[in-house]
This record gives sequence, C-alpha cells and structure tokens, in this order.
Amino acid sequence: MPKYDDELDAVLRALADPTRRAVVERLAKSPAVVSELAAPFSMALPSLMQHLCVLDNAGLVTSQKHGRVRTVSLRPGALDLLHLWLGEQRTPAEHQADQLGIHMTHTTPKET
Amino acid sequence: MPKYDDELDAVLRALADPTRRAVVERLAKSPAVVSELAAPFSMALPSLMQHLCVLDNAGLVTSQKHGRVRTVSLRPGALDLLHLWLGEQRTPAEHQADQLGIHMTHTTPKET
Repeated sequence: MPKYDDELDAVLRALADPTRRAVVERLAKSPAVVSELAAPFSMALPSLMQHLCVLDNAGLVTSQKHGRVRTVSLRPGALDLLHLWLGEQRTPAEHQADQLGIHMTHTTPKET
Repeated sequence: MPKYDDELDAVLRALADPTRRAVVERLAKSPAVVSELAAPFSMALPSLMQHLCVLDNAGLVTSQKHGRVRTVSLRPGALDLLHLWLGEQRTPAEHQADQLGIHMTHTTPKET
C-alpha cells in the first residue's frame, strides 16, 4: 500500500520532533492563533512557520487566515492513520490481554 | 519531559520508514531469524542490519544469537510510549465520541 505508506512516513516524520509534537498537543485542546502557538517556544516566528508547514504537508493541521490573524487547527482525524497502524501491531500476547480485559469488563460487578 | 521526548523522537524516527515498519509488522506476529526478515526485501543483508540497528536503538526490537543464527523479537511494550502519547492527543470532540461509545456499550442490550 504505497500511498498509505507515504502518508504514514510523512505523519511519523512530522511527529518525530518535540516542537511539532508540542504544537499538536496544544492544538488537540483547541485551535490557536500563530502567535499563541509561538509563545511557549524561544524560536523565531519563521522557524515556527516552517514547523507548521511540515505539519500541514503531513495532513496533521490546517489553517485559516482572517485579516492578519492566522488560526491553526488540528485536522479532524489527523492521527487516525497512525492509530490504525498501531492497532494492527498488537502482538498475540497483547490481543490475549485485550480479550481478558473485555472478559473482566463483562463479568466484574459494577461498583456503584 | 526531555527523556520521554528523546525516546519518542527515536521511536517515531525509527518508524518513519516503510522497511522498518514492515519489519515491526512482521515481528508483531512472532520473533523471526534475520534471513527470514530479509526475505521479502530486495536489499543487501548489511542494509537490513542497519535498519534493525535503528529499531534496536529506539528500543523497539531486541535480538539473541544462538550459534550463527540471530533471532529478532519485538520488545514487549515496544509501542506503549507511542500509544500513550497518541491517547493523550484525543480532541474534546473525540473524547465526547468515546464517552458516547462507552454509554452505548453500557446501555445497548447484548445480542446473544
């Protein structure tokens, strides 16, 4: 699945940087304007814009400009591809543990 | 959390390559000897060994040599850090959807 592979490459490479992950962590809470995103980092605005560009190219964020203010959002379902891939890598032992967890949920009396 | 960040950087960089992801996918099923891992790829053994080295340095795989045969395994809990980080990035809308899913599980009569 080369397209899926390319997209996953881009997502993983984009996230393999602590600044870009911090931006994603911030945007998971709510959209933010660029100056607000830049505030926690001691970096020039052009460097932050480059990071945002990498996240945008990987399909992780999207942005809209109203007048002079650019608002950046996490793209809905941005991390779904990575979730999906990770889910597929459950080992047989982990599957067994999952099943046990499901069994426990269905058989343990609810505490009220 | 710089150590957590460094580990996550290494894991994401290691996985941002389709060959290394294919190796992880194979190892999620069961441990494998190096020649078996190399078989699906048209690459020289030293190149595959380099990929395995990157996965090892990221804490994703481990290997044991018995005589001339090296067996590689996925390290237990290898992807937990990434699972954890991804889980923390659920958006408010996704949390709401999760809660709805849990509610449905608890209120929908079980089909037998």
